[in-house]
Amino acid sequence: MVKYAERIKTMEKTGKIIRNLFNAMTDPETISFGGGAPAREALPVDIVRQITDEVMRVDSRGVTALQYGDPLGLEDLRQVVVDYLLKPKGVIADPDQVLITTGGIETMNLICQIFIDPGDVILVESPTFVHCVEIFQMFQAKCVAVETDECGMVPGDLEKKIKAYHPKVIYVVPTFNNPTGVTTTTERRQAIAELGSRYDVIVLEDDPYRDIRYSGEDLPPIKTFDKTGNTVMANSFSKIFSPGSRLGYVVATKELISLFYQIQTATVSVTSTLSQVICAEFFKRGYYPAHHRMICDLYRERRDTMMACFDKYFPASVKHTFPDGGMFTWVTCPPEIDTTALLPEAEAHKVAYVAGEGFYVEGNGKGRNCMRMSFTGVTPDKIETGMQRLGKLITEKLS
Amino acid sequence: MVKYAERIKTMEKTGKIIRNLFNAMTDPETISFGGGAPAREALPVDIVRQITDEVMRVDSRGVTALQYGDPLGLEDLRQVVVDYLLKPKGVIADPDQVLITTGGIETMNLICQIFIDPGDVILVESPTFVHCVEIFQMFQAKCVAVETDECGMVPGDLEKKIKAYHPKVIYVVPTFNNPTGVTTTTERRQAIAELGSRYDVIVLEDDPYRDIRYSGEDLPPIKTFDKTGNTVMANSFSKIFSPGSRLGYVVATKELISLFYQIQTATVSVTSTLSQVICAEFFKRGYYPAHHRMICDLYRERRDTMMACFDKYFPASVKHTFPDGGMFTWVTCPPEIDTTALLPEAEAHKVAYVAGEGFYVEGNGKGRNCMRMSFTGVTPDKIETGMQRLGKLITEKLS
Repeated sequence: MVKYAERIKTMEKTGKIIRNLFNAMTDPETISFGGGAPAREALPVDIVRQITDEVMRVDSRGVTALQYGDPLGLEDLRQVVVDYLLKPKGVIADPDQVLITTGGIETMNLICQIFIDPGDVILVESPTFVHCVEIFQMFQAKCVAVETDECGMVPGDLEKKIKAYHPKVIYVVPTFNNPTGVTTTTERRQAIAELGSRYDVIVLEDDPYRDIRYSGEDLPPIKTFDKTGNTVMANSFSKIFSPGSRLGYVVATKELISLFYQIQTATVSVTSTLSQVICAEFFKRGYYPAHHRMICDLYRERRDTMMACFDKYFPASVKHTFPDGGMFTWVTCPPEIDTTALLPEAEAHKVAYVAGEGFYVEGNGKGRNCMRMSFTGVTPDKIETGMQRLGKLITEKLS
Repeated sequence: MVKYAERIKTMEKTGKIIRNLFNAMTDPETISFGGGAPAREALPVDIVRQITDEVMRVDSRGVTALQYGDPLGLEDLRQVVVDYLLKPKGVIADPDQVLITTGGIETMNLICQIFIDPGDVILVESPTFVHCVEIFQMFQAKCVAVETDECGMVPGDLEKKIKAYHPKVIYVVPTFNNPTGVTTTTERRQAIAELGSRYDVIVLEDDPYRDIRYSGEDLPPIKTFDKTGNTVMANSFSKIFSPGSRLGYVVATKELISLFYQIQTATVSVTSTLSQVICAEFFKRGYYPAHHRMICDLYRERRDTMMACFDKYFPASVKHTFPDGGMFTWVTCPPEIDTTALLPEAEAHKVAYVAGEGFYVEGNGKGRNCMRMSFTGVTPDKIETGMQRLGKLITEKLS
């Protein structure tokens, strides 16, 4: 058979982990805390029906929805991003600094096409989002972990690693981090932006969870501290509208957006105009505020249920983060628990999570006693049942 | 600013050509034969409205449409491809050999991720589809032209180039070629498949136009002659359903599909499930045959109008192909006409085409007297007006 490209070799390991995530999401018998998908109750099925019906009756909008479009994205959706999603957070941008992508993940692909040659370094949190590491490794980047604590990336270690590795990109999920649920503090956000500017490194601020907050106060995006254009803000409509529409956006300097435009044109041509028209109307027709409240209320209850279940069903030696929003909590078991080895046993008991070690680029068994657990896709009664099952299993292992 | 990846340098030239294609498509004042977009009358606006309305009232389908899905694509859409689009052409595949992509162009991106390291060779037709060359060059492939005549790629030259360059991929648009409108003969199809197998090269059969045929008989896909799995068939729903839905598919061995799956997971995660559900229902509910007839009738009239206009308005020294389907005819003017230089003048006369030289990877001014003209997106009366304008301009230049 024809020889594969070099990058295929590097994808094998992480590729398997991603497949497991997707598998866990689709097995109907198991109570899965594994995936990162919205709750089915959070999907605006009837709203999309209404919007599509109306849009398709107005001829020129219907044609726009089914025809090719501008690879930058539809003008009105870019304006929606500026008015509804950036301005309220203090990010002042004009629509020419916004490009609509085919979901949040595509932004990572575009960034790599623009910046990454084989051997280039990307600094990541520890732990970090494994799916992005897969893309980075596909581009044969070397991912290096930066020390990360309950306040986010540690600036001292970040600066040390910048000096040591001369990275092209710093990848950070500052709000309700995937996998930890931790939010980077304002001071750290400012420090990260400034280090990116001072050492001329791209700060890739991946922020898909920030709009689903259940407690506490909004913090300013890293992008608001960026004075040089080094911070690129990536976001997605998957958590606030619908993953199936495959829509995300990126905010950057006009110069960078023109490169994003070229690469997007080359790789997927344009983002679905059907999805874009419907999503733009979702905001313009005023559906978003009530839908957003509904999602946050739904997920807050689920988070609170899961948090209470740790106290009820888990030994005190099992620690977990308390996320103010997003989808995930990060669980640290005593060192004698190996979450990778435990997973098949948990699945036999019809409960699932994602084992922690895959989220560490350092390897060496780091995170082997950890797991990522998502509370958003499971109803409170099933959270209760699933947590009881998992708590019992871990209690038995420790006794 | 942070240093760009090496590939950015190679994209500059072809990138500009693509931008021109998109620009020509969106200027409303000019009669443009430049784009490759379906006619607005060919878009199933009301059908999509009806399907969406029904699908979104049936809860589980509505959730499927808005949720994440399998990166392979929805099972029923893959089954639609097998039953409605492959079987009738003699391609026997099972749904596991089909992966749904985010439009035809994404397939090229995936193929490159799988096979192309910098410096690898891709053999292309002469002329060839410039958009794909842009992707190939983005992956730092070296594109080498194979002699191509009115029957398609010339097997003798193809074999010579295979031996000389040891390519990874042969890229071919066998049916109603972009840009020439020419269809590769059955004998040549067989020869190409056999050469791919004999020398272990991937034959990338890009066939998005084959379903819109206005005259003549269907020819078997190259894939039907493939006994070794070397031929990969790429297709798109853009021309028979809607470009705005961003849906394509690829047919390959199960081994290769598992790699496509990994790369697709890494780069765009999943293809829009909203688009997939609607497209699957478009076929399953029986809308396709009548819609397909309508499109072919619409385009046949436009092709015939454009063909007649060459006789009426152009000097006999201007030659053109007669396409049995698809979107394009390829026009060869006498050598004293430089179509690149002529284009601004044509646009001043409110008519546009795509200049020919960008379609030749050989460079050296090849195709400088040629142009690609599309007839599908322009109504017959505007074809008449536009052809009259362009014919007059060229006649004047030659006199």
